[in-house]
Amino acid sequence: MEAQAEQPFNRENLEGLLKRRFFFAPSFDIYGGVSGLYDYGPPGCSLQANIIDTWRKHFILEEDMLEVDCTAMTPHEVLKTSGHVDKFSDWMCRDLETGEIFRADHLVEEVLESRLKGDKEARGIVENNKEEDDDKKKRKKKVKEIKAVKLEDDVVKEYENILAQIDNYTGDELGEIMKKHNIVNPATGGKLEDPKAFNLMFETNIGPSGVLKGYLRPETAQGQFLNFSKLLESNNLKMPFASASIGKSFRNEISPRAGLLRVREFLMAEVEHFVDPKDKNHKRFKEVKDLKLKFLSKKVQAAGSSDTTEMTLGEAVESGTVDNETLGYFLGRIYLFMLKIGMNPDRIRFRQHMENEMAHYATDCWDCELHSSYGWIECVGCADRSAYDLTVHAARTKEKLVVRQSLDQPITVERWEIDFDKKKFGPKFRKDAPKVEGWLNERTECELEDLAKELESTGKIAFKVGDLDAEVTADMVTIQKRTRTEHIREYTPNVIEPSFGIGRIFYSLLEQVYWSRPEDAARGVLSFPPVVAPTKVLVVPLSTDESFDPIVTDLTSKLRRLGIQCKVDDSSASIGKRYARNDELGTPFGITVDFQSVKDGSVTIRERDSTKQVRGSQRDVLDALQAMIFREESWKNGTKNLQPFDSADNN
Amino acid sequence: MEAQAEQPFNRENLEGLLKRRFFFAPSFDIYGGVSGLYDYGPPGCSLQANIIDTWRKHFILEEDMLEVDCTAMTPHEVLKTSGHVDKFSDWMCRDLETGEIFRADHLVEEVLESRLKGDKEARGIVENNKEEDDDKKKRKKKVKEIKAVKLEDDVVKEYENILAQIDNYTGDELGEIMKKHNIVNPATGGKLEDPKAFNLMFETNIGPSGVLKGYLRPETAQGQFLNFSKLLESNNLKMPFASASIGKSFRNEISPRAGLLRVREFLMAEVEHFVDPKDKNHKRFKEVKDLKLKFLSKKVQAAGSSDTTEMTLGEAVESGTVDNETLGYFLGRIYLFMLKIGMNPDRIRFRQHMENEMAHYATDCWDCELHSSYGWIECVGCADRSAYDLTVHAARTKEKLVVRQSLDQPITVERWEIDFDKKKFGPKFRKDAPKVEGWLNERTECELEDLAKELESTGKIAFKVGDLDAEVTADMVTIQKRTRTEHIREYTPNVIEPSFGIGRIFYSLLEQVYWSRPEDAARGVLSFPPVVAPTKVLVVPLSTDESFDPIVTDLTSKLRRLGIQCKVDDSSASIGKRYARNDELGTPFGITVDFQSVKDGSVTIRERDSTKQVRGSQRDVLDALQAMIFREESWKNGTKNLQPFDSADNN
Repeated sequence: MEAQAEQPFNRENLEGLLKRRFFFAPSFDIYGGVSGLYDYGPPGCSLQANIIDTWRKHFILEEDMLEVDCTAMTPHEVLKTSGHVDKFSDWMCRDLETGEIFRADHLVEEVLESRLKGDKEARGIVENNKEEDDDKKKRKKKVKEIKAVKLEDDVVKEYENILAQIDNYTGDELGEIMKKHNIVNPATGGKLEDPKAFNLMFETNIGPSGVLKGYLRPETAQGQFLNFSKLLESNNLKMPFASASIGKSFRNEISPRAGLLRVREFLMAEVEHFVDPKDKNHKRFKEVKDLKLKFLSKKVQAAGSSDTTEMTLGEAVESGTVDNETLGYFLGRIYLFMLKIGMNPDRIRFRQHMENEMAHYATDCWDCELHSSYGWIECVGCADRSAYDLTVHAARTKEKLVVRQSLDQPITVERWEIDFDKKKFGPKFRKDAPKVEGWLNERTECELEDLAKELESTGKIAFKVGDLDAEVTADMVTIQKRTRTEHIREYTPNVIEPSFGIGRIFYSLLEQVYWSRPEDAARGVLSFPPVVAPTKVLVVPLSTDESFDPIVTDLTSKLRRLGIQCKVDDSSASIGKRYARNDELGTPFGITVDFQSVKDGSVTIRERDSTKQVRGSQRDVLDALQAMIFREESWKNGTKNLQPFDSADNN
Repeated sequence: MEAQAEQPFNRENLEGLLKRRFFFAPSFDIYGGVSGLYDYGPPGCSLQANIIDTWRKHFILEEDMLEVDCTAMTPHEVLKTSGHVDKFSDWMCRDLETGEIFRADHLVEEVLESRLKGDKEARGIVENNKEEDDDKKKRKKKVKEIKAVKLEDDVVKEYENILAQIDNYTGDELGEIMKKHNIVNPATGGKLEDPKAFNLMFETNIGPSGVLKGYLRPETAQGQFLNFSKLLESNNLKMPFASASIGKSFRNEISPRAGLLRVREFLMAEVEHFVDPKDKNHKRFKEVKDLKLKFLSKKVQAAGSSDTTEMTLGEAVESGTVDNETLGYFLGRIYLFMLKIGMNPDRIRFRQHMENEMAHYATDCWDCELHSSYGWIECVGCADRSAYDLTVHAARTKEKLVVRQSLDQPITVERWEIDFDKKKFGPKFRKDAPKVEGWLNERTECELEDLAKELESTGKIAFKVGDLDAEVTADMVTIQKRTRTEHIREYTPNVIEPSFGIGRIFYSLLEQVYWSRPEDAARGVLSFPPVVAPTKVLVVPLSTDESFDPIVTDLTSKLRRLGIQCKVDDSSASIGKRYARNDELGTPFGITVDFQSVKDGSVTIRERDSTKQVRGSQRDVLDALQAMIFREESWKNGTKNLQPFDSADNN
């Protein structure tokens, strides 16, 4: 696509376009809508499908990943085990008078930011980071006005300190902060309840009995973990391998705003790459190692800075900024995917999570953040979930979720082992015997070592199994360290998880490809690359003259046969107006059928961004379109066999 | 594909294959599973994606439908208005002792059928409809054994009469039948509670306040109806047009069995075709009118028969069997879709719903039923929803959901109209005035006519608005019949809805394309047409010899660039075994790389069903594959430039 002469970005104009052309709209609009729920209209639906299709080719097909499609409905026990029932929550506080509910951390952040802003106004300080500031003003709406009130210097410092670690507080701590700094309902000044944990999963009952509680999944990952053994077998037991899933997830956000960036039902695309914890090298790392990305590590953030460092992935892994090749490989692949669908490389960065910010299952996490008028927004999380999920599900279900690797060289291992004298053990514990035996069998190496010492020194060991007080004497069990030769290594794989929020990517892309022509600021242009454009080609007959009809019909059926999505606009609007309408939809190419076409069969193609036109035979035009759409040829190369055409008389 | 020498169908073998190769499996399997929930593994996921892709091309792209993607989460008010909160339920009854819950109609059906069967055994009658009988035996599992007990002749008649209208009973009626015929828990003989309505929607709360009740949608249709005005505008106000949606829906079935045929979360593809109720002709009907389909009309069923009649769609519409061209057109398109994905035309039929069987919103409905070992199963419903949904949502929200058509010839209409004398109306009703006025404004023509008569004869009209008793006198309102000339016709479109259950189609297809070779009954073959096959081409090097590696790498990257899904099997198993494994996955073509390939670059292709092989240069082989995969050429035509090859030495 050609260079663009841009107008300054105007979110209201873009939103007007998206609404007018039904890219997306609030769900249940005629019923007043429900916050956090959106429907995609025809162009949005097609754009989403094309992003997904590109994703599937870029990740699943290119790397032979194993795609699965699991249910969203999930029984309580699974999400209890995964930790989501206990830990997947935000802090909310309620205004008992008005009933309004706030998300505690967002409220604290917003109120303190507005006070700091008021302080700056009072001190006469001009905001230097205007852009960031505008972002926040647009996104937040609870605090309606900024009051120019000067604060004490130490209060300013305290506020800044709180804001720097806003993701780091427990509910109690947020409550303390709210009390200490008198944070109340910004609209009414009313007092708020102490923060309470609000679980973000939608709860329901499965089946008619009412006894099987279920949730809608908050991520697609759990289904992939539960199918681990089947997937390993599908992969002929070879490691490493990846599974992938594309589907809806659900989060019952406390108070969703910011359009598509925070919603209650959303499309996710997740990869779970299973890897040997002892070898996180990646055989295709060399293909991405020279890519230069912008990094913002946790170290830099902890030092109070948000300056990104540009370096190659090779350098990042070598310097330890990025922990290993597998993680690095996926950061590179994510970056290439973003470029492929049309993101601006200057508006892509990779930010590492701070220690306190990570989800309960993650040991390391890099977000791919995309820049829009809302600031830098997390659109892909690339987490190292270690062996967390497979371990907890295996422990709960007693199903082994492991890889068994034949060793070339047998190894010698020392291990603590326990043996039972069943004749004495059984009679003592009777029906509880399996429970007590099970408890002992589940001890770790360290625990067995401790128990062995206790048994040796006191002649017995005592412990609790559920409600049962068990005492086992030295005649009933033997605990010994033994040396064994092993030919098989058994291990629980680690998981590297690139997790894509498709709606956030979708919205960020719309902002990044939107611009308007200096001569027509009211109408926008969406410069999608052909691969994701909702429609690839617009066919416009010059006028409603009937002689154009057979050519239009013939052309569209040829385009369809080639697999090129096209639309016809045979309305009576001027050619210029019809093209402008399609620039709004991001249609990259237009074919005009005119009186010359009737004479000699030739037609013109127009390029959306430059509005340049060239002319040629139908056959040459279709060849050019295939080259530009399927083989990503540039306009210049793709149309080199066609003749320049002056469109002045058409517009 | 070539002719098949089939073994008799064996469901256990097919199920074994599907499980072993992870086409699908119970969700949360390692937790013991949850009935009615299934995960799709890699080949199932790919098959599903290919069916969906074919559907999207066949319906959405071919007919320029407007695709939308709406949320599954739906607020109470929307589904209350649509009638689902009140009417979308089944009847359940509980065994108070064991807690087991039965679906009342299924239980009655099963118990009576088993008694009739026992009666026939006692009478020494040999079942003539063996196949249907086997179907039922396989599907149902509540009644474990058939007792040979002879019944009175009039009891037999009564049972048969009940079974003929089993879909027609209310809960009370089912309760009566159960009491009268002593229908109890078949396992324990325990008494059952009276049937209660159980709503099939999963209920949850939206947001943290707990006051906004929501449901997971039971169909995708409502989102399309609510967006009607936006869609009409997207279509430049042209009628008729269709929207379409592909997505998950949820139904909390009482006691799901029968695998993928009755599940609690499922993928649907639905078309809502909006049409002028006065003109249901279809401009493309001529393209399908000569298709010959099997019909089973409601008339034939009401006469107690289930014999299908074969006729063309043209005949069906002309004879009134199928109500109109639009409905007929979609039946034809559904049939063509089924053929395209590989269904057997002999195992497709179209059955019309009986009056009492239709959903609450439908006025007519034809099911496309596919035959499998479970009998004839509804896989697509093609309903005429008339103006039901648009009308109820418009009434509830006061948003007009109509089409405004400019009339070429203005028409004269007579209409009852009401005028208010606000000066007298206001003081009398004060704050209730808008309510009373609103009530009057909402009256139909007929009601206004009645009110006018009442007003004329008694000088007043009295009515209730909510709790308010209103009395309006002749000085406050005028009700008159007036004649007007109209240039615009305003109407609520009717909706024809083809609604596809993708999981049911998926399973029926697996049964219809499954067979096994006489020489290898244990291993099955899935004869998918290339368009839906999970993998199109298997590449197999003859042995693990390293000289094959560069050829395999080159071939697969070429295939990928052509958009042909392929897999490599370079394991050390014999060629024959590797092909057999891929016949199970339904991979239509195999390329063998052998020592001849190393010498001259030529390779062989094998056809799955016939196991025939031909040989040629890489280029010719790739051309042949493209012809057979993308242009649906036959094996014979597609490979006419290649040389016959005797594979005896490979196997």
